[in-house]
Amino acid sequence: MNTAPHSLPPQAIELMPHVNGARYLRMQRGLAGFGARTDGGVSREALTSVENEARRWLMELVHGAQYSWRVDAAGNLFLRRAGRDNALPPVMTGSHIDTQPVGGWLDGAYGVIAGLETMLALDDAGVQTRYPLEVAMWNNEEGSRFKPGAMGSSAFADPSRLDEYLRSTDADGTTVQQALRSAFSAMQAAEMVPLGRPVTAYVEAHIEQGPVLEAANHTIGVVTGIQGVRWFEVVVTGSSAHAGTTPFANRQDALLSAARLVVAVHSCAEQYADERLRVTMGRFEVAAGSVNTVADNVLFTIDLRHPESEVLEKFEADIRRIVESNGSPCPATVTRVMDRAPTPFDARVIDIVEAAARHSGVPFQRMGSGAFHDAMYLADLCPTAMVFVPSIGGISHNAAEDTEEEHLVSGVKVLAAALMALAM
Amino acid sequence: MNTAPHSLPPQAIELMPHVNGARYLRMQRGLAGFGARTDGGVSREALTSVENEARRWLMELVHGAQYSWRVDAAGNLFLRRAGRDNALPPVMTGSHIDTQPVGGWLDGAYGVIAGLETMLALDDAGVQTRYPLEVAMWNNEEGSRFKPGAMGSSAFADPSRLDEYLRSTDADGTTVQQALRSAFSAMQAAEMVPLGRPVTAYVEAHIEQGPVLEAANHTIGVVTGIQGVRWFEVVVTGSSAHAGTTPFANRQDALLSAARLVVAVHSCAEQYADERLRVTMGRFEVAAGSVNTVADNVLFTIDLRHPESEVLEKFEADIRRIVESNGSPCPATVTRVMDRAPTPFDARVIDIVEAAARHSGVPFQRMGSGAFHDAMYLADLCPTAMVFVPSIGGISHNAAEDTEEEHLVSGVKVLAAALMALAM
Repeated sequence: MNTAPHSLPPQAIELMPHVNGARYLRMQRGLAGFGARTDGGVSREALTSVENEARRWLMELVHGAQYSWRVDAAGNLFLRRAGRDNALPPVMTGSHIDTQPVGGWLDGAYGVIAGLETMLALDDAGVQTRYPLEVAMWNNEEGSRFKPGAMGSSAFADPSRLDEYLRSTDADGTTVQQALRSAFSAMQAAEMVPLGRPVTAYVEAHIEQGPVLEAANHTIGVVTGIQGVRWFEVVVTGSSAHAGTTPFANRQDALLSAARLVVAVHSCAEQYADERLRVTMGRFEVAAGSVNTVADNVLFTIDLRHPESEVLEKFEADIRRIVESNGSPCPATVTRVMDRAPTPFDARVIDIVEAAARHSGVPFQRMGSGAFHDAMYLADLCPTAMVFVPSIGGISHNAAEDTEEEHLVSGVKVLAAALMALAM
Repeated sequence: MNTAPHSLPPQAIELMPHVNGARYLRMQRGLAGFGARTDGGVSREALTSVENEARRWLMELVHGAQYSWRVDAAGNLFLRRAGRDNALPPVMTGSHIDTQPVGGWLDGAYGVIAGLETMLALDDAGVQTRYPLEVAMWNNEEGSRFKPGAMGSSAFADPSRLDEYLRSTDADGTTVQQALRSAFSAMQAAEMVPLGRPVTAYVEAHIEQGPVLEAANHTIGVVTGIQGVRWFEVVVTGSSAHAGTTPFANRQDALLSAARLVVAVHSCAEQYADERLRVTMGRFEVAAGSVNTVADNVLFTIDLRHPESEVLEKFEADIRRIVESNGSPCPATVTRVMDRAPTPFDARVIDIVEAAARHSGVPFQRMGSGAFHDAMYLADLCPTAMVFVPSIGGISHNAAEDTEEEHLVSGVKVLAAALMALAM
């Protein structure tokens, strides 16, 4: 952590040409082979046998006297590269190798292989950093097989969460604790280390999973934080009536009333004219849901996101005002069912990532993350930031997920330079 | 058919005091015992054993030298009261005794018992009409167990429909043909008569199943016709996207777009300022329907009703204009999936019903029927009209369905007078 803001030490700049794009892509495509589908997608859910094989393959991929592999009780796997002062807490990068039931080939796998390529670039450059470096493969980020998501990184940040996580079951009734046994067996070459170790700094590379960078023709996103999220359920109550016999004046039409609320909430969001505000009505469930019956009940959801708590608070008040003023003939209620505060990243680490992006010579921008990432929990523990590369068409969690190869390689270079600046 | 418009012959007026309200109510409540539920509702679907028991009970209820019971190949049951000239086609009344899976105690059962009480009132008055009179119990009006609804009356109006109907199956795979066997066995005392006999005139009494009469404080609705119905399916196509990562400008939000269409179609309907126009969006189905995903597909339905074909035509054009101008970013398509033309009733029979209502001394109004009835098919065959009585709260197809006793009795008197005027 010897770097002044807005500058990048020469050693970090000099590391970038050592990033080997062809080698990086071979490793990235190699990992995609584990769980590969014929449609180009990848099915590699957490703690499945195919994910265990991928862990074993990664452990065989990078080795040498300077390296050691480690695992913790939450199933997080780490590649450690020794520093000059190994008593210092590591500078860390990484992400996750688990996917959604049908995911893309990049997602978290990008940040993991970008980390491994950074290690190999340091080898090629003959550099020994002052701080030890670690690449983390956080367990079960997706949360599709076992809930919650970001299980490994959140247990790392707060080990008191682990007990509950170990009892989480998948659809077949298998617990995390049971599934971890075969994972540990696949990783028996790794040394067991405690959860909750101190970390000097954390930088995670990830695909954007959205359309912002592509639309702006920017190769790198310097991620300044993860926006806060609140979820709401709105229930609109009308009265069932015959579509043929009931005049408009006698109706309490929950569907019509709810449609007006959806439009009103969206119009309110547009009036903010704030590009960072995200408001989504994604569920809309009608009872009775019959062609010739006036609906008597609608439940719809609102997903609200913004990087600033004040804006979340203000928009929640707007939602309550809009919904609660609905009144006659169809009263509506709103309930907040989820609340996750915004996670701002560390100003100094953001500056270092931005300086690395500037020196990499490709166009970049600062941006917030719309999605959750393991970095959200690491930010509770140590100075943190992220590097984004564009997603073609903004598509993710989909077999069609992809990123231009040159963008992937640019992202590895920026990550490598930032880690060098932090660890030297 | 000897009656001039706007007048009622003295014999018809004189019949009304012979309607016995207490006897009528006993019969109405007796029929409600077949399939009675503890919540006050009735479960008596078509051709079930409980409906067969009700048929048998009705056949034992009314008998005498002037009466004969008849059945046809579509399962319609008739009580015939001899006239002075039995070669003439009958003047007919009736309705249906089947219910929705959970129905109310009145619905079609009202028109059947009102018809039986008319016969008994004629007996008490010592009247023999010129035309034979028949009370029809049309088979399977509801269409909940076997599709389509109004099966018996539509086969009566056009016997070529019967072959297809006999092959219709319920949820257990039982065909109408199979279910009719036990019904015929329950009705073996009835004589089999052909389908498609000529009918002199048809008047059906029914509860309104809507709120119009109650709101107007009118006891009798003189029904001038059954409105036409068109059903549409609207499909709105967007694109799935992450609620957290996708700015508004990059979204193709099918849910928001469909909600706007629902509001637009309703606003268009309101601009007609036509109390007879009924427009209902009752289904609204969202894919993916996930709280944190922008929806990529919505299907919603439009139920459009009006007594005039020209208005149906004009509003359909409005729907097409609104939906098809939706365009970018969420194109929408509209498909008409059902089209039933308006059924105007016969002016002379309407006049007779109105004259009977005037002479009954209770407040009345002319009105259209918002719902389908067996009378819709009888109108294809002979001069037809209907008599409505109020529904408390406009509620029907529900255990809470009810009508004030005095209103029920008033309706029987109007029906009796109208039938007398037509049959004398």
